Amino acid sequence: MDERSGKGHARLHLDPKVRQEARTRLLSVRGHVEGLLRMLEDESVYCVDVLKQIKAVQGALDRVGEMVLRAHLRDHVATAHERGDVEEIVEELMEALKYR
Amino acid sequence: MDERSGKGHARLHLDPKVRQEARTRLLSVRGHVEGLLRMLEDESVYCVDVLKQIKAVQGALDRVGEMVLRAHLRDHVATAHERGDVEEIVEELMEALKYR
Amino acid sequence: MDERSGKGHARLHLDPKVRQEARTRLLSVRGHVEGLLRMLEDESVYCVDVLKQIKAVQGALDRVGEMVLRAHLRDHVATAHERGDVEEIVEELMEALKYR
Amino acid sequence: MDERSGKGHARLHLDPKVRQEARTRLLSVRGHVEGLLRMLEDESVYCVDVLKQIKAVQGALDRVGEMVLRAHLRDHVATAHERGDVEEIVEELMEALKYR
Repeated sequence: MDERSGKGHARLHLDPKVRQEARTRLLSVRGHVEGLLRMLEDESVYCVDVLKQIKAVQGALDRVGEMVLRAHLRDHVATAHERGDVEEIVEELMEALKYR
Repeated sequence: MDERSGKGHARLHLDPKVRQEARTRLLSVRGHVEGLLRMLEDESVYCVDVLKQIKAVQGALDRVGEMVLRAHLRDHVATAHERGDVEEIVEELMEALKYR
Repeated sequence: MDERSGKGHARLHLDPKVRQEARTRLLSVRGHVEGLLRMLEDESVYCVDVLKQIKAVQGALDRVGEMVLRAHLRDHVATAHERGDVEEIVEELMEALKYR
Repeated sequence: MDERSGKGHARLHLDPKVRQEARTRLLSVRGHVEGLLRMLEDESVYCVDVLKQIKAVQGALDRVGEMVLRAHLRDHVATAHERGDVEEIVEELMEALKYR
């Protein structure tokens, strides 16, 4: 199932510092989702305010994604010379960008 | 601060059924965010898998937003005749769409 | 092929004034695309500048789309009472929003 | 105005082959914009069809952007070792990604 290790050019793992920072930010995202759940208990909540809050949560997730992507680019750029296969590295990066 | 009640054309509230369904879906979004937090405890997690999972959570939030927006459109279309001011209703809808 | 007239609730046409304004804006979009083509003749053009200009053209197209959507919402809201079927009108609007 | 050459780490230029392919695709985008202009001359054009066509043009522009971005990543990855400053290269790539 994991074709990623197949050619010795495994996609790179998240380093501990980035993983910790992503965790902190996701705890805040979870807090925002709970805020949304509380909003929905309010009988008089406005549709537009719910939409606004959903957009804010998605923005917070974008920032987590940006942080992970930056780490990913850094690893790829730093190791490109020793890994050697530019085309494969570029395709891995383009694939990561699809999920942005 | 709340100019919404100003002209007697208040933006419309979420009805109880939609509110309940949004709540159910958001509980599932919260579950996905917790899944992401668990992924980050795995030492060998891949960057790309984190990005993919973030995208999935944003997709789930989009579906909540779509549901709320549909309810919002329905209320506006259904009450447009009695509220009367087409231009104002259109501007309210366009504003809601900014948060989509 | 055109199921739209099927139930007597045809999707609404663009009115002449909106059509004229959309035309004017699209002429400007075409001008921007031609600007992009000229940029590409410059031997020393930067990738980032090309990406920036593409984003600007897409922004200009968004504004045409917003104008058309506003006209579409206005027609639907204004005629909802006489057309009557709220659910169908809402589905038509949700479909239009997919293309935004 | 051009701080890009300031530190000897100029952002990279588009290579002739990519520039030519971008040109070909943009000529097709221009053709689609002209198609949109012709649609607007049709008195009975539907709003939804205009929105759909705008989305298609934006999709075609996305594909040009993707091609330029891929070239940009390739250049950066290939030259990272000789240019040396990983952090700066990563920031340049993250900046390019803002315009995607």
